Amino acid sequence: MKLKDIYVTNKNILRNNDRQGAGLISERMRPFMENNSAIRAMFEEGLRMQREYGADQVFDFSLGNPSVPAPEAVKDAIMRLLSTEDPVVLHGYMPNAGFPEVRQRLAENLNRRYGTAFSGEDLIMTVGAACGLNILLKAILDPNDEVIVFTPYFMEYGAYVRNYGGILREVRTEAETFLPDLSELEKKLSERTKAVIINSPNNPTGVIYGEETLKGIARVLSQAEKAFGTEILLISDEPYRELCYDGHTAPFVTPFYHNTAVCYSFSKSLSLPGERIGYLLIPGEVSGAEELRNACVIANRISGFVNAPSLMQKTVAEAVEADLSPAVESYDENRRTLYEALTELGFTCVFPAGAFYLWMKTPVEERQFVEICKRHRVLVVPGSSFKGSGYVRIAYCVSPEKARASLSAWREIAREVFSTLHREKKVVYSTR
Amino acid sequence: MKLKDIYVTNKNILRNNDRQGAGLISERMRPFMENNSAIRAMFEEGLRMQREYGADQVFDFSLGNPSVPAPEAVKDAIMRLLSTEDPVVLHGYMPNAGFPEVRQRLAENLNRRYGTAFSGEDLIMTVGAACGLNILLKAILDPNDEVIVFTPYFMEYGAYVRNYGGILREVRTEAETFLPDLSELEKKLSERTKAVIINSPNNPTGVIYGEETLKGIARVLSQAEKAFGTEILLISDEPYRELCYDGHTAPFVTPFYHNTAVCYSFSKSLSLPGERIGYLLIPGEVSGAEELRNACVIANRISGFVNAPSLMQKTVAEAVEADLSPAVESYDENRRTLYEALTELGFTCVFPAGAFYLWMKTPVEERQFVEICKRHRVLVVPGSSFKGSGYVRIAYCVSPEKARASLSAWREIAREVFSTLHREKKVVYSTR
Repeated sequence: MKLKDIYVTNKNILRNNDRQGAGLISERMRPFMENNSAIRAMFEEGLRMQREYGADQVFDFSLGNPSVPAPEAVKDAIMRLLSTEDPVVLHGYMPNAGFPEVRQRLAENLNRRYGTAFSGEDLIMTVGAACGLNILLKAILDPNDEVIVFTPYFMEYGAYVRNYGGILREVRTEAETFLPDLSELEKKLSERTKAVIINSPNNPTGVIYGEETLKGIARVLSQAEKAFGTEILLISDEPYRELCYDGHTAPFVTPFYHNTAVCYSFSKSLSLPGERIGYLLIPGEVSGAEELRNACVIANRISGFVNAPSLMQKTVAEAVEADLSPAVESYDENRRTLYEALTELGFTCVFPAGAFYLWMKTPVEERQFVEICKRHRVLVVPGSSFKGSGYVRIAYCVSPEKARASLSAWREIAREVFSTLHREKKVVYSTR
Repeated sequence: MKLKDIYVTNKNILRNNDRQGAGLISERMRPFMENNSAIRAMFEEGLRMQREYGADQVFDFSLGNPSVPAPEAVKDAIMRLLSTEDPVVLHGYMPNAGFPEVRQRLAENLNRRYGTAFSGEDLIMTVGAACGLNILLKAILDPNDEVIVFTPYFMEYGAYVRNYGGILREVRTEAETFLPDLSELEKKLSERTKAVIINSPNNPTGVIYGEETLKGIARVLSQAEKAFGTEILLISDEPYRELCYDGHTAPFVTPFYHNTAVCYSFSKSLSLPGERIGYLLIPGEVSGAEELRNACVIANRISGFVNAPSLMQKTVAEAVEADLSPAVESYDENRRTLYEALTELGFTCVFPAGAFYLWMKTPVEERQFVEICKRHRVLVVPGSSFKGSGYVRIAYCVSPEKARASLSAWREIAREVFSTLHREKKVVYSTR
């Protein structure tokens, strides 16, 4: 028996022993189960608490589930489609990339709003932005390829990258602004870097990446592409694109860097998170754009998405002509209510320019703070769920009444934590 | 430098060279692109031909896209939901497994129809059956784990298994019946077998697996589980469950074998293929059922599905109370029209007991036959796309008018191929 054969035999014996009595779940699935989403756990805890105490007694700031109903344009569009369209087409298969006329209308809508020159071919309709990210990562990642994210970040990115054997590399943001630390980005880029994910307006910080930031990222990535002789894809995850306050806008990313792909979702702009409808945009200037789109369409099919839900494709194509930011005013009211009250009570928050999250420092240890909040029936997500420990995320996409009603609970939380702090003579932060 | 370091360095150099100028698409994605779906290619070719010649001049039998409209119950349910339900709930996030009341209603519907005793907890709502298959395979497969399928089979199974590093093992079916060859199954089972996929009524043959077949499979799998000391999951992919003819029924699979999971889709029963709505059923008797369901729910989230489309979840829960096989009569008419005409013309088909496919022997070489059909504007899918070479699949889920109108084209095809055969003095088959 040769050495190689012994290795193979030993390996097989090990594998066989592994399988005996091992049950059905794969070894590869286990780490995903251990790192299960704290956000989702909190959301389901919230549903449980609502059943126990009544919905008006629970202040659930855990999940980005819009409280603002979908605009009337959505209902109108569905009603009209049901009455006028052939149900065989309306609920039927279409090309895996989506209905051509839907893609064309969405491209034209973008062109009108951002002065771009996209065609329907550049868009692939997806089962939400999470599908767009997954099929794109499946199309580009080989095992041990690296993807860069900026901390704090939406932790699902980690799972999406690991789904395809990729390695997540974290780059810190700057202390006060939560904008990418470009010198740190430069250091973490390598010949193995396949993509960089950005998310602006940002979950969980509410920060918007302005032109200077995007130019900076583009410059660093272009240099790295030259230095390594590789292509690096900038993936812009934009479910919050239209949710900006105080006259801010999120610059459209594709004009800044040639290799940019956009993952969009109508979850927040049209309040349709449960419907799973969005698109993946791969502009013509992306290296090998046509082949990459083709790869993504195939990934869409073979991953089991097949196509974005058909009625919702046609619905968003109609509703998009209406205002895409109907919810901003109500979220803005919550943003001000909570930011003012919480800072007044002594907490330190980032004043968000976009999205619907407050990113708040915890005056005591983070898990302890989350437990104190829970005791006062306030549900928030611990910052370490975004690799931003020492913070919590407050999703203020609740109704304005709910946000106002929560203030007395917040006052009690403040009383509890700050008196604790006083007793322990430990002040974690000094400035507002 | 140690040997290990040299290896690592060499590997890195190789990897770097690989990446230089390699573009964005991963090496791992390439084989999926090369094996791209012939069915989908044919469908898109059909759309192109319809634009060129007019829809009435093209006979597209390529795709399982139901021509029968969704029952009125679907439209009624959507209209009612839009008028009565809070849009924040109707289009909002719910637990990743789906709305609890939807799962409960679907479980009760199954219990009424099949005398089972499922609860809502046993069901996970999915983005169609393809999603159910993918999240289940993600949850159970480690690299090089084996999954068995019976030829001919829906080729996407191969991609679904390879998505998670699994290896597909093909087991032949018996020559006349297209039922699994159980002695071949016994031989192909190994300690690496994690799952066996069955699909009844079958795509592409239209065969239904009766009680004897299911008992046989169960016996062989139970023996293998004992012999290897492993768990083997039987995955029943059932998009055609309700599409049975001549009083046949497809026996419900879970009572036959303890480790059975069901992937269901409403695509065919409610004519909603574009909506991507179905469920994954993992009964309590499956080994570690609760943990496996939990793994599948997490896989559902992290793969980017997140949840099944919310409006459609609630819609099918209502529509399921109506008849789930409204389309059978119209498909039955096509089945008879085409089977009678084609066998009359000299072709050899399996007379299908279920689904909406005719599996027909090709009198000349398969690719050549497909090309001849195409010249007569008849689109069919080559059998090798199902690992069943020497056949074509005719998807007769078209309108009865279309099926009848195609007969003259079929006559011309027969004249062409059989005269060719005559000239070449080569008869491929002898019996009907």
